[in-house]
Amino acid sequence: MSHGETRIVAHQTVPMITITREFDATPGMVFRAHTDPEILVRWLGPRRHTMSIDHFDCRTGGSWRYIHASGGEEHAFHGCFHEVRPSHLIIQTFTYEGAPDGVALERLAFDEVDGGRTRLTATSLVESFAVRDAILASGMEGGVREGYERLDELVAS
Amino acid sequence: MSHGETRIVAHQTVPMITITREFDATPGMVFRAHTDPEILVRWLGPRRHTMSIDHFDCRTGGSWRYIHASGGEEHAFHGCFHEVRPSHLIIQTFTYEGAPDGVALERLAFDEVDGGRTRLTATSLVESFAVRDAILASGMEGGVREGYERLDELVAS
Repeated sequence: MSHGETRIVAHQTVPMITITREFDATPGMVFRAHTDPEILVRWLGPRRHTMSIDHFDCRTGGSWRYIHASGGEEHAFHGCFHEVRPSHLIIQTFTYEGAPDGVALERLAFDEVDGGRTRLTATSLVESFAVRDAILASGMEGGVREGYERLDELVAS
Repeated sequence: MSHGETRIVAHQTVPMITITREFDATPGMVFRAHTDPEILVRWLGPRRHTMSIDHFDCRTGGSWRYIHASGGEEHAFHGCFHEVRPSHLIIQTFTYEGAPDGVALERLAFDEVDGGRTRLTATSLVESFAVRDAILASGMEGGVREGYERLDELVAS
């Protein structure tokens, strides 16, 4: 895949989204950017949002909650960490509290490519194709791409 | 549905299993039987298994792990609690440690029917139809039915 490209694919037969993105940083660095709350708030989501952490206990059996604020509006998200394998894998749940009955099962795999770079593969599984397609129609793609560009800048600095 | 029947349905278009079962007990009682570890070990799974709890912190953001032992063999399971709404709903993850990369997203809804009885609807969503069909082929149905018969006996006693 080309440099800096974020690939977002809707699975044909399962209500799942797969996001693939490569970074010029080691799996350990990209993993840390996903698990250290002080780094996470500097890149996750669009630039116009201010992110704050309610709690972020990133270990197998821990849980998390954060808030994105923008223009006087707040959007909160929460979930639990099913499994965390340092520098390799995070399996977690994810709910946007504006739609509290919707829950996604997410898997983030950090794989080394080209000697020292990282390919991140993030899948998100939900209970129906209607929910999956609503997520894709919500404009999440722009926020995901912009967040990863911010992460590029952080690992380059 | 007829009394004591456990209905297990494989969803047509999504890799999900839905289990439906009614109990002669209130939603509060059936919920408690799922969340109080001292009650849980007395009914969950087949009679031939001895169940022990490693930890069982049944609250939103908590986690759990238990072991089924039978004939010198041990099988362990673990997950995290995404959301717990007392007497109403449990959303959790589930992994059999013998297949540690397989993770299910489970939703247990406790609904009152017929004034004081409970209909339990338990869904289990996995990442592929192959995994879902392997679970159904594993003989889980017998263990689920036997467990619910044990729960019937507990709430009747």
